[in-house]
Amino acid sequence: MTTPLYNQLGVVKRNIVRADRTAVDHLGKFGSATVHEAMGRVGLMKTYMRPIYAGAQVSGTAVTVLLHPGDNWMMHVAAEQIQPGDVVVAAITAECTDGYFGDLLATSFMARGARALIIDGGVRDVRTLSEMGFPVWSKAISAKGTIKATLGSVNIPVICAGTLVNPGDAIIADDDGVVVVPAVDATRVAEAAQKREDLEGEKRAKLAAGVLGLDMYNMRGPLEKAGLKYID
Amino acid sequence: MTTPLYNQLGVVKRNIVRADRTAVDHLGKFGSATVHEAMGRVGLMKTYMRPIYAGAQVSGTAVTVLLHPGDNWMMHVAAEQIQPGDVVVAAITAECTDGYFGDLLATSFMARGARALIIDGGVRDVRTLSEMGFPVWSKAISAKGTIKATLGSVNIPVICAGTLVNPGDAIIADDDGVVVVPAVDATRVAEAAQKREDLEGEKRAKLAAGVLGLDMYNMRGPLEKAGLKYID
Amino acid sequence: MTTPLYNQLGVVKRNIVRADRTAVDHLGKFGSATVHEAMGRVGLMKTYMRPIYAGAQVSGTAVTVLLHPGDNWMMHVAAEQIQPGDVVVAAITAECTDGYFGDLLATSFMARGARALIIDGGVRDVRTLSEMGFPVWSKAISAKGTIKATLGSVNIPVICAGTLVNPGDAIIADDDGVVVVPAVDATRVAEAAQKREDLEGEKRAKLAAGVLGLDMYNMRGPLEKAGLKYID
Amino acid sequence: MTTPLYNQLGVVKRNIVRADRTAVDHLGKFGSATVHEAMGRVGLMKTYMRPIYAGAQVSGTAVTVLLHPGDNWMMHVAAEQIQPGDVVVAAITAECTDGYFGDLLATSFMARGARALIIDGGVRDVRTLSEMGFPVWSKAISAKGTIKATLGSVNIPVICAGTLVNPGDAIIADDDGVVVVPAVDATRVAEAAQKREDLEGEKRAKLAAGVLGLDMYNMRGPLEKAGLKYID
Amino acid sequence: MTTPLYNQLGVVKRNIVRADRTAVDHLGKFGSATVHEAMGRVGLMKTYMRPIYAGAQVSGTAVTVLLHPGDNWMMHVAAEQIQPGDVVVAAITAECTDGYFGDLLATSFMARGARALIIDGGVRDVRTLSEMGFPVWSKAISAKGTIKATLGSVNIPVICAGTLVNPGDAIIADDDGVVVVPAVDATRVAEAAQKREDLEGEKRAKLAAGVLGLDMYNMRGPLEKAGLKYID
Amino acid sequence: MTTPLYNQLGVVKRNIVRADRTAVDHLGKFGSATVHEAMGRVGLMKTYMRPIYAGAQVSGTAVTVLLHPGDNWMMHVAAEQIQPGDVVVAAITAECTDGYFGDLLATSFMARGARALIIDGGVRDVRTLSEMGFPVWSKAISAKGTIKATLGSVNIPVICAGTLVNPGDAIIADDDGVVVVPAVDATRVAEAAQKREDLEGEKRAKLAAGVLGLDMYNMRGPLEKAGLKYID
Repeated sequence: MTTPLYNQLGVVKRNIVRADRTAVDHLGKFGSATVHEAMGRVGLMKTYMRPIYAGAQVSGTAVTVLLHPGDNWMMHVAAEQIQPGDVVVAAITAECTDGYFGDLLATSFMARGARALIIDGGVRDVRTLSEMGFPVWSKAISAKGTIKATLGSVNIPVICAGTLVNPGDAIIADDDGVVVVPAVDATRVAEAAQKREDLEGEKRAKLAAGVLGLDMYNMRGPLEKAGLKYID
Repeated sequence: MTTPLYNQLGVVKRNIVRADRTAVDHLGKFGSATVHEAMGRVGLMKTYMRPIYAGAQVSGTAVTVLLHPGDNWMMHVAAEQIQPGDVVVAAITAECTDGYFGDLLATSFMARGARALIIDGGVRDVRTLSEMGFPVWSKAISAKGTIKATLGSVNIPVICAGTLVNPGDAIIADDDGVVVVPAVDATRVAEAAQKREDLEGEKRAKLAAGVLGLDMYNMRGPLEKAGLKYID
Repeated sequence: MTTPLYNQLGVVKRNIVRADRTAVDHLGKFGSATVHEAMGRVGLMKTYMRPIYAGAQVSGTAVTVLLHPGDNWMMHVAAEQIQPGDVVVAAITAECTDGYFGDLLATSFMARGARALIIDGGVRDVRTLSEMGFPVWSKAISAKGTIKATLGSVNIPVICAGTLVNPGDAIIADDDGVVVVPAVDATRVAEAAQKREDLEGEKRAKLAAGVLGLDMYNMRGPLEKAGLKYID
Repeated sequence: MTTPLYNQLGVVKRNIVRADRTAVDHLGKFGSATVHEAMGRVGLMKTYMRPIYAGAQVSGTAVTVLLHPGDNWMMHVAAEQIQPGDVVVAAITAECTDGYFGDLLATSFMARGARALIIDGGVRDVRTLSEMGFPVWSKAISAKGTIKATLGSVNIPVICAGTLVNPGDAIIADDDGVVVVPAVDATRVAEAAQKREDLEGEKRAKLAAGVLGLDMYNMRGPLEKAGLKYID
Repeated sequence: MTTPLYNQLGVVKRNIVRADRTAVDHLGKFGSATVHEAMGRVGLMKTYMRPIYAGAQVSGTAVTVLLHPGDNWMMHVAAEQIQPGDVVVAAITAECTDGYFGDLLATSFMARGARALIIDGGVRDVRTLSEMGFPVWSKAISAKGTIKATLGSVNIPVICAGTLVNPGDAIIADDDGVVVVPAVDATRVAEAAQKREDLEGEKRAKLAAGVLGLDMYNMRGPLEKAGLKYID
Repeated sequence: MTTPLYNQLGVVKRNIVRADRTAVDHLGKFGSATVHEAMGRVGLMKTYMRPIYAGAQVSGTAVTVLLHPGDNWMMHVAAEQIQPGDVVVAAITAECTDGYFGDLLATSFMARGARALIIDGGVRDVRTLSEMGFPVWSKAISAKGTIKATLGSVNIPVICAGTLVNPGDAIIADDDGVVVVPAVDATRVAEAAQKREDLEGEKRAKLAAGVLGLDMYNMRGPLEKAGLKYID
């Protein structure tokens, strides 16, 4: 047995296995809700993770970074590991809402091909980031700057907003939240999501026509069996 | 004495007394702040209830639903009880931010004539809901899906975001929050709100012209009497 | 020694020393993040202070007001002390999210020349305020009204959202938050902010061209010295 | 239809129907968890309600009081309505953690025969209250005093910590929380609780002897049917 | 005008004016609630500040320290400035719950004569601290350690838990919370607190004898005048 | 590549590799703070995890369980997997404070040899659990019961209170919090913790004798170099 990378500080892993690009892009067509269901209702980050502007929907492969409270030094180290199509996922070793990321880092990340940042901390320059069209999902917005003094790690497994993220995992994010799909499951989950989506069109048409879910899903029998009583 | 409906599970009440439609529509012309004042400063839901998009202003009659944590089965039962002009008010028996409601249910609710959903829990598909123009006030936004396994109730009195809602009560919601007006009080409160509104135009003109509230409301005397001191 | 004004109730100070107008307007050109850094990373209000609408960026001189929970009487007293270019900063003696401020007071404040309100409590009529273009940063949005019964103070030092604000201090607020610059430091901080801003253009161009922060800031040596290890 | 008492201010109801004393005292022998289950898993106040000292377990009949933020005037009005065996249940019209209750009021309440206070706000003098043996369940502990300026009501239905409490309802509180039993249901719930309790002794003995819940409750079949897989 | 010490980093002020020792010790005989009232209901820290063990009641003169998130270097600098009878008041420049203080620092602080620590952050080794009898009021308990890398300041004005503390101010803390009395006001507030306390004994005896506050405070008239109605 | 167990539902892993018993027991002699430092300041659960009674200090090997909101079915499945010396670590797939665990399950867990429960949710019967001496660290205390309807998993990797726990990992918990040590690291971390502990005795003696940390740790030079200024 060797010490797992999770929990190690001062490490940058260069070669990571990214989820299949086609599957990741396919996943990006669905919302986080559909992907989350297709996963079996796991993998969703905590609901305090909110987009800095409405309407963005992205998918990408995770480059992870573990930061110290109030210190964004490793963000620069992470930038070098970004490949086009990546989403940077930043965790902090303690709860801290400082603004670890602003328009300069976003410029650098975009130049490297990053599609978004997911950070279990704060972000700043949000108006400029919105104008640049660089989406961020974060726990907080804060003008508070950070220092560059303590080592963290890049591309190790991290816990971000209550969810385990391994480098290379597929990340799907939209207005409903952020979902993590293990790299090895990306293709399978994309197919499952597609199946769910295919079924939804017909359902939506029926419901729009006034058919009740009670009838469409044959719920009346089970509800009666469970003891539901109608009174006047 | 008979057991009150409040606290009962597995019950659907079909015939409810809705607040007077004219009064409810009248209330909808005022903001929640004006209605809340006209009520005597009671009936406001807790301030964590936020709209999923800015600018919506609705009024309607409450169809209530009590859900179990992580279970939205009763939402489908509630759909059948919706009449045009209703607002669905959903309470949960425990604190839970799962996404109990998405675009499929919204399609069904809209087909039934619902004007909005007020839910003391989470909602998902918020971008689609915004595009559909179906307003929701909720405690959270979450991609997390729910199951359909446990009975709740429909059209019983519920506590939603700290406020008692009886089926048929008038609900007024806008960017400032959600106010509940007992059905029997709808007409009286609408008239009181109208009076407040009538007085505001003149006040606004005076204040815009630079008249101070200190003078317009004759506050200088009471303030001095209360002991206010001006120093240089 | 005399009792400090901080902590006193029932006092209105009429003559306050406002930060230099030119410096304050200069500060308004920078975001709160830049000003906060130029200050030495102090003076930022807590991150729960959020704008009622996105995109506003203001600077001004503080007129302070200390309110009692659920009582906005002193807001009217404060209105009289407003001069063009001021920003009203409201603190509450206890945590309370009531809506202390709405469109009528905003009309009055605008007529007096106020540029914004910063309040460690709630605000209402936010849709109307947005239409009027009167920006507010607040802890909460609430339709809940307040009474006018208890004295507070105007233009005394207050703690607002975790930060000391003296009357006359420069306030800078945007989507990233609210920063307080002591009146005496306004000119110095504006100059320091200008220097930071001047340096950013060049950096941004380099980063946009793909230069890494690792190289631009010469971080590779310090990182290696700190023990950073690259693995494959 | 007449306006419901819920939502009315400035009212004191003198004659209330209290839950049956024998049933209330019987309920006091069980913990809040057992009573909550016997009720059908409803009626529990939010979990932020905590006792000021560990180990107290009480039951009583509710005298309700609705307070304004920062104002405890109605506590004195409520004192007069207390009868031996009552528990005072205090709600606030807005969220506020001020200390509405201290050792003087506790002395008065005890002299009237009150068994406890349940308050959706703050309490102070907690060390003295602990020494006096007067239990309080509250949302906060705060040295902050209150004023006596605004009317509330006594013995109207109130929402306390997310739960509807009608005057006369049975209140059961211990280290696990606070449960409200409608007055009309007190006897029935006490009997149901007794049945649960009777069954627990045998179960506890079996479990202590090493019998697994899996076997005692015959869960292995249902688990297998639900798809549970054992792997090595 | 010179830049105020508030907001400055990297500064240690050695000579501070401490509140009168006799007055501070006198204040220590009263609870925080009595002192807070005697102050005019200001000066109370936010209610999230809780003691690590029940029953401690202290008063002392403030030695202030401003820390960076996750960094307790300045605690050691502060230790040297402690004189017997001081209470150390620690503020953090951002919200952070790390454990900045444990049994080793407590040993040092006690050796210097400190009576307590008030910290707007986390503390650890709480069992040992309890056994040592060194009381701490904190925002959190956390085993998380800190580094020693960034300068803060000692004995400058700080904001701790929402309250301004100047070095030398009197601090009164017990189970109800933490109150700050400006050094210049210590004697006056102690006298006012004594007067309140003197009056309470008689009141307590009356209330214990069953006299109602309604009568003792002559509230019936004002309540009737305010419109209170009794119904049956 | 195969799908990782993390994220899978409906699985019970029977054979897990537990951390070395001697190392785990050794770790139990140190507090969570010492172990956390010896780990390199990682592995600490979020600070909202609090013990139900003060003074407990345990170490053990993790049996993990993943629960659905409001459903404790898998707790019974987990019971069968407990071996003497284990600590059960329970995670929930969504935030939910229901009481998943009470005195009956505790009786069963104790009969199996469990030393404690760590749960990122609620617990009930806390007075009885305290009397039984079965320690629990939890996010909440709640009388709210749960159902037994939905599958989770046992002995898969889980995220509990922000930390990854693999079955078999060493868990150390006391009044300061809960730390997770990967099974493979248990011996190494126990040795590192012992070294830290050995050094602390001498330090404590010096500090108790009045030696300042400034001198004992030779901080004066670095502080001066960092720019610290003393003023009078």
